[in-house]
Amino acid sequence: MTGAAGFVGRPLLRALAEDGHEVSCVVRPSTEISAIAPYAAVIFPYGGYQQLYQIARETRPELVLHLAGLFLAEHSPDTIVDLLESSVLFPCVLLDAADRAGCGRLVNTGSYWQRYNGADYDPVNLYAAAKQALEDCAAYYVRAKNWKMLTLQMFDTYGPGDTRRKVLNLLHGLKDGESLAMSSGEQKMYFCYIDDVVDAYRQALRLLDAQPPGTARTYAVRGELPCSLREAAGVYLEVSGRRPALQWGVRPSRPREFLDPEGLGEVLPGWKPRYSLREGLRRYENGWN
Amino acid sequence: MTGAAGFVGRPLLRALAEDGHEVSCVVRPSTEISAIAPYAAVIFPYGGYQQLYQIARETRPELVLHLAGLFLAEHSPDTIVDLLESSVLFPCVLLDAADRAGCGRLVNTGSYWQRYNGADYDPVNLYAAAKQALEDCAAYYVRAKNWKMLTLQMFDTYGPGDTRRKVLNLLHGLKDGESLAMSSGEQKMYFCYIDDVVDAYRQALRLLDAQPPGTARTYAVRGELPCSLREAAGVYLEVSGRRPALQWGVRPSRPREFLDPEGLGEVLPGWKPRYSLREGLRRYENGWN
Repeated sequence: MTGAAGFVGRPLLRALAEDGHEVSCVVRPSTEISAIAPYAAVIFPYGGYQQLYQIARETRPELVLHLAGLFLAEHSPDTIVDLLESSVLFPCVLLDAADRAGCGRLVNTGSYWQRYNGADYDPVNLYAAAKQALEDCAAYYVRAKNWKMLTLQMFDTYGPGDTRRKVLNLLHGLKDGESLAMSSGEQKMYFCYIDDVVDAYRQALRLLDAQPPGTARTYAVRGELPCSLREAAGVYLEVSGRRPALQWGVRPSRPREFLDPEGLGEVLPGWKPRYSLREGLRRYENGWN
Repeated sequence: MTGAAGFVGRPLLRALAEDGHEVSCVVRPSTEISAIAPYAAVIFPYGGYQQLYQIARETRPELVLHLAGLFLAEHSPDTIVDLLESSVLFPCVLLDAADRAGCGRLVNTGSYWQRYNGADYDPVNLYAAAKQALEDCAAYYVRAKNWKMLTLQMFDTYGPGDTRRKVLNLLHGLKDGESLAMSSGEQKMYFCYIDDVVDAYRQALRLLDAQPPGTARTYAVRGELPCSLREAAGVYLEVSGRRPALQWGVRPSRPREFLDPEGLGEVLPGWKPRYSLREGLRRYENGWN
């Protein structure tokens, strides 16, 4: 598993351990591992590409579960190499290492940002393009090496403890009366609560059992109903009782802001979110402590 | 320009210089540059990703001409990182650097190996997958930054001085009576002589002028007629007068050997090969001296 110490990875690793899986984790050398150590069979601080072959030989993984990724709405000359290395090179070499150790299964993490305006492929940003690039590389293992691949195309995941620079987390950090410049807030989003996201990965593992070798599938993981950012913020302020001053329409929208992802892609079969946005936001607010 | 010291790059750089272009080249630090120095405006031995931003600021390129690539029929744990770095990371960062310096044009080099059995995308090997991965990264610049991209999907290029491990070059290296184990030789190929390949890139530069911003096009560059490897070898032995002992059917075919690429993709408009296989092979044989 990659990304085990991340926002989705932490609760997912715990759930997998509770399900009885033995999970070997490759983490960045800088990662603080105390929070995940109780749930991992073994943790390897990443030590270069050749180490991945050694890890695969030692652990003989049945499946690669790839969550790691450097979330960047916009890259810069200072971050582009890290973005591409962590999103393309590292996981591709990991697949190669796993392949040579007899593995043939991948559960991968995509993003709806790969599909600007509903296209099959039109990346909102380089982060999304790098995810597509990895899928291209993984396709080699699917076609030439008979792997099974299942990609979960993630929509707007949220939950307590999320430190990514996303609007909800910024709102959470505001004190009453503090103000925040917002965009129009009209973009529609499919918020999906972290517990539902974890369940989606568990369902993906089950589905992969029955999926034929040499095939790749992509499914959406998203809330049931689209909701504008403005509406979502309204619900959040209501359930949290917070009173920051949101200045809607002050910030320009991001380049290639995704206005309406409605109906994008088939939702993961056999899975549906348990939490409404209101219930998820209540848990979000209470879960930070 | 990348790949200027390579088999296609050398004569292409020379032709571009003769056409009056000022070509800045980024080459591997280990590259022997004396052969290309007379034709390049400036040569930068590659010194890390950040250097690419500096080069782009200094040279303000009008166009990125990407030929570099590590040709590998099959990768290994020892070569995979170099393959991915040179085929995905390096050119992607180069595009980013060029983009920030105001550039918006890319002529790119693809391979028909991206299209096993005629699929839109089905990579024969990881080399082909990496080419696709770069195209998907480049698509970000096309869609989000309004670049024009033209990809030449290369078939079986050949010419004197080619040192890649390809059958024709192996035959050329044999002495009379020496034997070489061959596959069935039934795979069809579209051989394309180096001078025709160079002309294809020049035509691509012209076509890109008229191509609208924000669009990507892919065209095939290939000989006019398909020809089995066995037939081609026969023609080569005839025009060269060589008499090696070819043991057809002895070697197993490569995994995912491409048996018939017939009709694959639209050929580059306004271009057609000048050299028949027989004439090209005559020039190939005589050109080594």
